[in-house]
Amino acid sequence: MFNENAYLLGAQRSCIRELFEYGRQRAAVVGAENVLDFSLGNPSQPCPQEVTEAIADIVANTDPVALHGYTPAIGALETRQAIADDLNERYDAGVDPADLFITCGAAPSLTAVFKALAAPGAEILAIAPFFPEYRPFAETAGLKFNIVPATSHKLKLSTLLVEQHLTPKTVAVIINNPNNPTGMVTKEKLLRPFADMLRRKSAEYGHPIYLISDEPYRELVYEDEVVPFLPKLYENTIVCYSYSKSLSLPGERIGYVYVPQAATDSRAIYTAIAGAARSMGHVCAPSLWQKVIARCARVRPALDLYDANRKKLFHTLAVIGYELARPQGAFYIFVRIPGGDPAAFLEKAKARDLLLVPGDDFGAPGYFRMCYCVEPEKVAKSLPILAELYRDAVDTL
Amino acid sequence: MFNENAYLLGAQRSCIRELFEYGRQRAAVVGAENVLDFSLGNPSQPCPQEVTEAIADIVANTDPVALHGYTPAIGALETRQAIADDLNERYDAGVDPADLFITCGAAPSLTAVFKALAAPGAEILAIAPFFPEYRPFAETAGLKFNIVPATSHKLKLSTLLVEQHLTPKTVAVIINNPNNPTGMVTKEKLLRPFADMLRRKSAEYGHPIYLISDEPYRELVYEDEVVPFLPKLYENTIVCYSYSKSLSLPGERIGYVYVPQAATDSRAIYTAIAGAARSMGHVCAPSLWQKVIARCARVRPALDLYDANRKKLFHTLAVIGYELARPQGAFYIFVRIPGGDPAAFLEKAKARDLLLVPGDDFGAPGYFRMCYCVEPEKVAKSLPILAELYRDAVDTL
Repeated sequence: MFNENAYLLGAQRSCIRELFEYGRQRAAVVGAENVLDFSLGNPSQPCPQEVTEAIADIVANTDPVALHGYTPAIGALETRQAIADDLNERYDAGVDPADLFITCGAAPSLTAVFKALAAPGAEILAIAPFFPEYRPFAETAGLKFNIVPATSHKLKLSTLLVEQHLTPKTVAVIINNPNNPTGMVTKEKLLRPFADMLRRKSAEYGHPIYLISDEPYRELVYEDEVVPFLPKLYENTIVCYSYSKSLSLPGERIGYVYVPQAATDSRAIYTAIAGAARSMGHVCAPSLWQKVIARCARVRPALDLYDANRKKLFHTLAVIGYELARPQGAFYIFVRIPGGDPAAFLEKAKARDLLLVPGDDFGAPGYFRMCYCVEPEKVAKSLPILAELYRDAVDTL
Repeated sequence: MFNENAYLLGAQRSCIRELFEYGRQRAAVVGAENVLDFSLGNPSQPCPQEVTEAIADIVANTDPVALHGYTPAIGALETRQAIADDLNERYDAGVDPADLFITCGAAPSLTAVFKALAAPGAEILAIAPFFPEYRPFAETAGLKFNIVPATSHKLKLSTLLVEQHLTPKTVAVIINNPNNPTGMVTKEKLLRPFADMLRRKSAEYGHPIYLISDEPYRELVYEDEVVPFLPKLYENTIVCYSYSKSLSLPGERIGYVYVPQAATDSRAIYTAIAGAARSMGHVCAPSLWQKVIARCARVRPALDLYDANRKKLFHTLAVIGYELARPQGAFYIFVRIPGGDPAAFLEKAKARDLLLVPGDDFGAPGYFRMCYCVEPEKVAKSLPILAELYRDAVDTL
């Protein structure tokens, strides 16, 4: 007498989480320094100093009743105002605080948006490779989960392929830019025709196809890469953001949803998101963290460590012979597994305490993801192992 | 093209939240000191000094990467251990840290438990008067929401009435002790025969009837009142707890679910709760707050202010002539509305900036709830108005 789907989700868990927890257990046995855990996007950079200072100052100088009390469910006005100001300064985006809904991070942002859009029979389309949790989030919300397969080795956005996988019941396409797991940034020149196609298909189907922009990595880009602000390119974009990665606060659970006023049924969608969040137990985002974001919405992450890891990994893996795309954002690198037996490759890595996430759950079997927000020493230690694994895999061909 | 139920939940909102936000708007117009807002259970006592000190110390002396990083989804072990230790010391409860799942507060605890128990066709039974959000939480989870009506003016737990409203599809009964909205504590001598009845009906139906014990007010009791720890009386109890009220942290979102090992299918239920939480976007409870609870699980609230308000309100309202039960816990008082027109009574109160929550949404129309976690001056200011409203209502009879 319990919910079978909930049980299965609890029993199977996310493979990333599973690896991460395996890593913690191994660390207890062999020492944390000997576990080369590239599984979870748990930032290794400390939060910016401004954040630590803001907490200390807020706690020291705010009436605790006001500080720790409920905020409105949609979030404190000062927090929404600070975020709107930041987005407007950077993107001339026309964001009003009333368009923002403060959440407990990206996952609750996504589940609330999915649930809000889950009209009877509605379908959502994800583009492989994609963040694996999209599937349970969508299916629990009642959406049919469709996938654009990862057919190209380049793993770039293909407007044609996406169009071929739309159906008259598709209410939303989800995009993740910079992408997890590839670390690639989809550029404006690819997104413009993509947006045109979505407009054309929306008109054909007689209802909007929303673009859900999952962008916790927006601020994590390298070499002057620019991540387009999607609501400027496609009016029916719903932005799901999190401060987990940009401010190195993954455990603290703070983010937001932005529904542009220009979106079709903007207010109704916003209202449905609020209702969906309520029905899943959202009361408000943690109030102390709302106060911190009100002060730190303009703070940007330090990227030097990630960038050094990225360059070292990308160049060395390419020299070894691995096939991989150049990551321009986030802190992931997505690598084609050499040889004919991806599972054996990953098992061999695991046996050497090198934890790589298989591409299967991202909808791209035959790849592995490395999350390089780790100490540089771990990158250095991993490279000879990866070189050896490559030779072994290729030799057995 | 959006989810109608989510839209309605967003549009209608909770009537308590609605009143609270009305109060904030009125405060901007007439001054906060002139709005007698008894709507929302937003504690007026500051969090205990130990909590403020713990935050400052943790932030000053913990590596930010470890402090703000992801914890396991079920919660940090140190937090679960501290809670288990506290429960075991107080109740000799046999709680193992593995039986605890740390959540973002009572609402996500309830939604996860409801979803976990939502087998196809399953029903849940609430006993009026009850916290209004139970209904949307249950219905969104897929449970049929049944109600034991509030027939008795004493509003005490009636085992007979509950038994009459059980069906073979009832998978859970939800109880709230101390109760919101009445502030009453259901005592062990009433709970023992209640537990016996649930055992008998479980045997009759051939499946367990879980007792969901929603107990954010467990620590808020007066005059040496004792709140029984329900898992000791009924093995199939699932406890949903929150630190919102006991540590005055309602905006910070931290609580837990406890599934006793003695419960039927204990591990499966725990697993389904974890899966349900995951599907609704739970990643982990805020990590800083988990660290605070690890240190402060034994800290108890200061109750003097609430107790003074409680006594003053109870005695004065009784002297005026209001019919009401003596509240022994929480910070609510639930009062029968005199005269023949409850809606008119509440409107007149609202016109005087006295915000009382109607009993309708609690399943007990004809009552109002006052949340007395307010400044004593507001209690004092409200009493002459309540006296006047009483006379007016009785005079028109």
